[in-house]
Amino acid sequence: MKKNVGRKLGIYPTPVVVVGTYDKDGKPNLITLAWAGICCSEPPSVQISIRRERYSHKAIMERRAFSVNVPSVKYLAETDYAGMASGQNADKFKAANLTSVRGELADAPMVLEFPISMECRLTHCVEVGSHDLFVGEILACWIEEEVLQPSGRPDPQKVAPLVFIPGSEYFALGELLSSAYGPGKKLMRE
Amino acid sequence: MKKNVGRKLGIYPTPVVVVGTYDKDGKPNLITLAWAGICCSEPPSVQISIRRERYSHKAIMERRAFSVNVPSVKYLAETDYAGMASGQNADKFKAANLTSVRGELADAPMVLEFPISMECRLTHCVEVGSHDLFVGEILACWIEEEVLQPSGRPDPQKVAPLVFIPGSEYFALGELLSSAYGPGKKLMRE
Repeated sequence: MKKNVGRKLGIYPTPVVVVGTYDKDGKPNLITLAWAGICCSEPPSVQISIRRERYSHKAIMERRAFSVNVPSVKYLAETDYAGMASGQNADKFKAANLTSVRGELADAPMVLEFPISMECRLTHCVEVGSHDLFVGEILACWIEEEVLQPSGRPDPQKVAPLVFIPGSEYFALGELLSSAYGPGKKLMRE
Repeated sequence: MKKNVGRKLGIYPTPVVVVGTYDKDGKPNLITLAWAGICCSEPPSVQISIRRERYSHKAIMERRAFSVNVPSVKYLAETDYAGMASGQNADKFKAANLTSVRGELADAPMVLEFPISMECRLTHCVEVGSHDLFVGEILACWIEEEVLQPSGRPDPQKVAPLVFIPGSEYFALGELLSSAYGPGKKLMRE
């Protein structure tokens, strides 16, 4: 039996991404977000949602660009930190001992140490409420060669992404269950 | 060393949700989506992105409402199926042997068997490209009592959500690593 627990955010799970921006003075900054995801296949696009008062919000509005970086579980402390500190008064790359790499196509810094980094161009900004939703078109996706499979796809277990449960806890990726477009086929015939 | 693999969707992982709608004749329908996520804390809101040609797209535009249901891993086949079949010519609830429950606050059906169901009111529609991005305000979140903890929060391991990796595979949730706003504290002082 189900119970109405009110207006709760029940999406289980969400990703954990670290977004890179340059501020007006060109200082690279980071913010960790779980209110994020894919929102379009063509052009390939992501959505990231940020409170208007956050330092990264202004940087995205000014530069109309950002990077989306996927941390591995071994960078849990660095990732958690980048969600708590503010770029207004901290150099988060320095404090977290992470390396900033200038994007080639978007005016945003990427995180060298993380296995996946995407350069994004801002295409839409939607005022939803406490958060503005930014849509970014992916101009390039950089993958650490050590996690790439012969197929050209990253190995999910080698990427070892963080998995977030709102409320809020970090989990690891669990076991592989199946490929998509497989287990449902038996129901297609009925 | 990182390699540019092109304009790839590198968000690892995404959620897997099953969205419920009524069509113009009142028939309940389902669609499985991984291009989805949380996009605002207040009002609590989700984003779901759907190709314009899908049957569910029209239903959302007409009713301006949908439900977002989180399946457990035991419903892998049913979930995979609802992403492949079309409500245009299939009764997906019937074929997947799932039970439709009318929402109390939004004009949309929920999936009885899934541990989490949210009733949503359409607030924004953004044309991104192949997909339209719908923002829905969460009016109610229904949780199966068996997965609720004394705190009122669902137990993530009992919810046992599917975890999706674009490309594309289903995984299970892995081990708990830590609470948020914890492991990064040691870097705040440096």
